Amino acid sequence: MDAQLHKHWEQFQQLVRKIISYNEALGLLYWDLRTGAPRKGTDIRSETIGILSTEGFKLQVSEEMGQLLAIFAEPQNEQQLDERSRRMVAEVRKNYEQSQSIPPEKFQEYTILSSQSEVKWEEAKENSDFAGFEPYLSRIVALKQEFIDYWGVKDTRYDTLLDMYEPEMTVEKLDAIFDRLKARLVPLVQAIQKSTFEPETGFLKQLFPKEQQKKLSLFLLEQMGYDFEAGRLDESVHPFATGLNPRDVRITTKFHQDDVLSAIYSSLHEGGHALYEQNVDIELAGTPLAGGTSMGIHESQSRLWENMIGRSRPFWNRYFTDLQQHFPEQLKDVTAEQLFLAANRVENSLIRIEADELTYNLHIIIRYEIEKMIFNEGLSVKELPATWNAKYQDYLGLTPPNDGVGVLQDVHWSGGDFGYFASYSLGNMYAAQILNTMRQEIPNLDNLIEEGKLAPIKEWLTDKIYKYGKSEKPAEIIKRVTGEELNPDYLADYLEAKYTEIYKL
Amino acid sequence: MDAQLHKHWEQFQQLVRKIISYNEALGLLYWDLRTGAPRKGTDIRSETIGILSTEGFKLQVSEEMGQLLAIFAEPQNEQQLDERSRRMVAEVRKNYEQSQSIPPEKFQEYTILSSQSEVKWEEAKENSDFAGFEPYLSRIVALKQEFIDYWGVKDTRYDTLLDMYEPEMTVEKLDAIFDRLKARLVPLVQAIQKSTFEPETGFLKQLFPKEQQKKLSLFLLEQMGYDFEAGRLDESVHPFATGLNPRDVRITTKFHQDDVLSAIYSSLHEGGHALYEQNVDIELAGTPLAGGTSMGIHESQSRLWENMIGRSRPFWNRYFTDLQQHFPEQLKDVTAEQLFLAANRVENSLIRIEADELTYNLHIIIRYEIEKMIFNEGLSVKELPATWNAKYQDYLGLTPPNDGVGVLQDVHWSGGDFGYFASYSLGNMYAAQILNTMRQEIPNLDNLIEEGKLAPIKEWLTDKIYKYGKSEKPAEIIKRVTGEELNPDYLADYLEAKYTEIYKL
Repeated sequence: MDAQLHKHWEQFQQLVRKIISYNEALGLLYWDLRTGAPRKGTDIRSETIGILSTEGFKLQVSEEMGQLLAIFAEPQNEQQLDERSRRMVAEVRKNYEQSQSIPPEKFQEYTILSSQSEVKWEEAKENSDFAGFEPYLSRIVALKQEFIDYWGVKDTRYDTLLDMYEPEMTVEKLDAIFDRLKARLVPLVQAIQKSTFEPETGFLKQLFPKEQQKKLSLFLLEQMGYDFEAGRLDESVHPFATGLNPRDVRITTKFHQDDVLSAIYSSLHEGGHALYEQNVDIELAGTPLAGGTSMGIHESQSRLWENMIGRSRPFWNRYFTDLQQHFPEQLKDVTAEQLFLAANRVENSLIRIEADELTYNLHIIIRYEIEKMIFNEGLSVKELPATWNAKYQDYLGLTPPNDGVGVLQDVHWSGGDFGYFASYSLGNMYAAQILNTMRQEIPNLDNLIEEGKLAPIKEWLTDKIYKYGKSEKPAEIIKRVTGEELNPDYLADYLEAKYTEIYKL
Repeated sequence: MDAQLHKHWEQFQQLVRKIISYNEALGLLYWDLRTGAPRKGTDIRSETIGILSTEGFKLQVSEEMGQLLAIFAEPQNEQQLDERSRRMVAEVRKNYEQSQSIPPEKFQEYTILSSQSEVKWEEAKENSDFAGFEPYLSRIVALKQEFIDYWGVKDTRYDTLLDMYEPEMTVEKLDAIFDRLKARLVPLVQAIQKSTFEPETGFLKQLFPKEQQKKLSLFLLEQMGYDFEAGRLDESVHPFATGLNPRDVRITTKFHQDDVLSAIYSSLHEGGHALYEQNVDIELAGTPLAGGTSMGIHESQSRLWENMIGRSRPFWNRYFTDLQQHFPEQLKDVTAEQLFLAANRVENSLIRIEADELTYNLHIIIRYEIEKMIFNEGLSVKELPATWNAKYQDYLGLTPPNDGVGVLQDVHWSGGDFGYFASYSLGNMYAAQILNTMRQEIPNLDNLIEEGKLAPIKEWLTDKIYKYGKSEKPAEIIKRVTGEELNPDYLADYLEAKYTEIYKL
């Protein structure tokens, strides 16, 4: 790197480090709000968050940033950057262009609207009042349509949105993937519905004291290799994971006294997200590459730990004793096998976040198809409830009795997060495909789990995925790790094998 | 306010609000570091704190700020500002001028040196190695001397430092005050030493489980009117209070299993600081006036609650039952009177932070006199240990066996905080004088305490002191509330009366 470029590079690194400092502070301000900030201070706190977000945003779209990016774009300069530096620049440029392209007054309108809209959505959900929410959602969609024009239309308009959460994912690819998945999962779900077998779940309907649940969550997180010196577990209304920096990755869970599995699985889920960020190469700290590479890959790590490990028979063969020791009275007549079966009960239901591992994907496909209709086919917001209900009837054989448990159930759209839902199923598919490779490379995987030796799993994932952070794109990772592109058959194979055995199909 | 000025005023308010946002974020980042941030994340966190502090600092000394302050300084503009706005401007101007007057490279040298020096101090204290610390402390003192020149010498050089913590306090005033106090307290301490009475404290040397201590601290804080919806109690190595915003004022304590009084008194102490900030007029939120007016007045509130209320006989007559209920085994044979006496044992000791309510002031006077000698009389850093030891012998009849428990015991000087110590005794004196007025205005004060009715005390303090925040100076507050200037006789009267009775002098 010539001396002049080197000076610019140092300036760039400092500017980026500064932006990351705002993000760490904002991350902590949010984390604190959700885990125990005093109620009366939240109004002032929200204002503070708004002010500091704006400061961070200004740096991202600053003239200084624009000039530096222009310098690095010159061929004689770009060729002097190593691969990692080029990725850093690309990542920053993507944010810069996205933010820079929206006129400030449009962005402000969007910010204000989406926060109003979230409040309206909450009321509307509560009262099953889609009509009351519709004007807000319509305006959000209209603004998002404008944004797509500013950002630039990719293959289709909806492609532009997909790419924001899953870089380089397209409607063309995803249509094929989801069609294939749907074609295999819908019959599986139907077969299970016809099955006479039904896992027993009565023993889950008891009182499980919170203190014991917390101890168990801490134990399981330790087992999976979550580093408590680089993170902590707290309680919040909705579980989440947040990486403040690569050595401070916090998770939360929610303990329900009448549902012992909820906290266990949310701990494993958020623990999976956290393992990813805790094990990113420390060299990437302070750069924009120190995080998960996409929502989909992130979700693959949470779901691999939650479902593919945490809902496996070997897992419960090993850990049921611990569960029982924490709740000896409640579970004295229960076996590991019963617990395993109960944790894998399939039930067609209306609510995504309560869905089982299998039908969950159908909830996502429904949302994907509807979002695509909105942005690519001109489906109006007014038509959403009817479309929603028809698809639920088609794929899950259920019609929501009201919009509160139907089209109004999720927060995402109220904040304008279109294109996000697909990540959840992408996560499942990536996870199944990664697991398939892991089984080849760690042939005694089930034995290890059954012996409670989870460290080799974490090490393998660190080596294959975690350490790369954002320095590889999702498609690159999946290709390098598994040798092929994303292939939905791995998830379908996994689910078919698992549920055929459980439901004796 | 004319339209042009109004525009500038709005700009000023926004700029100030922005600086306050940095302070809230930094306050939370620090609080988090001390109450449970994961160990491995602290290096990156410290870097983040450094970066955001610099950003906040840049705003304070920005050209924009300089221009606005110049505008408000023009007579035709200043006369358009109301009293509160003028105070706001004055407060901001003071910070601006202080920060602006130091050349950036000097400031940076000081920042780096003081953080190195704190590390060196820790080692030196551990090893009683004053010689190893001396070069750092000498450099700190030399830089502070330079700073005094930049800031401008007031009546004396040391006056400049005093004024930073206690606005408008001077060596002339403080010399007279401390001489008077010393003249009355030294004989009192000597009389107590000769007394044959000795409060029994053996029952304090038992095991008091942490969980119960915590419950009791929470109960007492609630009793004094600390608002848990505008604050929270956590544990940290050193107890502290921090106002993130006027409705988010947090405190910490430290539970020692072998010392039940430590957490009680640190909770009352930090609770006193917190009550002050929680009850500042909400109109002052988002302005530089939303905090305590000086270190001395702040300390008066912590010490009033900790010592004058919390170490009073009426307090223990009321709350001993609660203490006993939390530790029924440990305290079954103890009475309220015994507890009261034990909590007021006077002992000449070497360590300031372990000192009792009476001798504490002598520890402070020693430090004040030494600091004054350094800055006004050219006492060299090399001479500090000998000077220290001579004064401890003079005032407390003790000579430290080594510098670790002598001149090296406090962190303050290693960070350059000269002029700070006086605040602690100023706090005691303000508190005694305020208490004297409170007794006149709430004649049944002791009865109220004995009945556990502490709310009127909080209300009185809110009305007289808390609500004003920084909109009055310390001397204005004490004059308005008590009708006279700071007078050390109130503290001396209070201590003489209390200890003459306890020690049957």
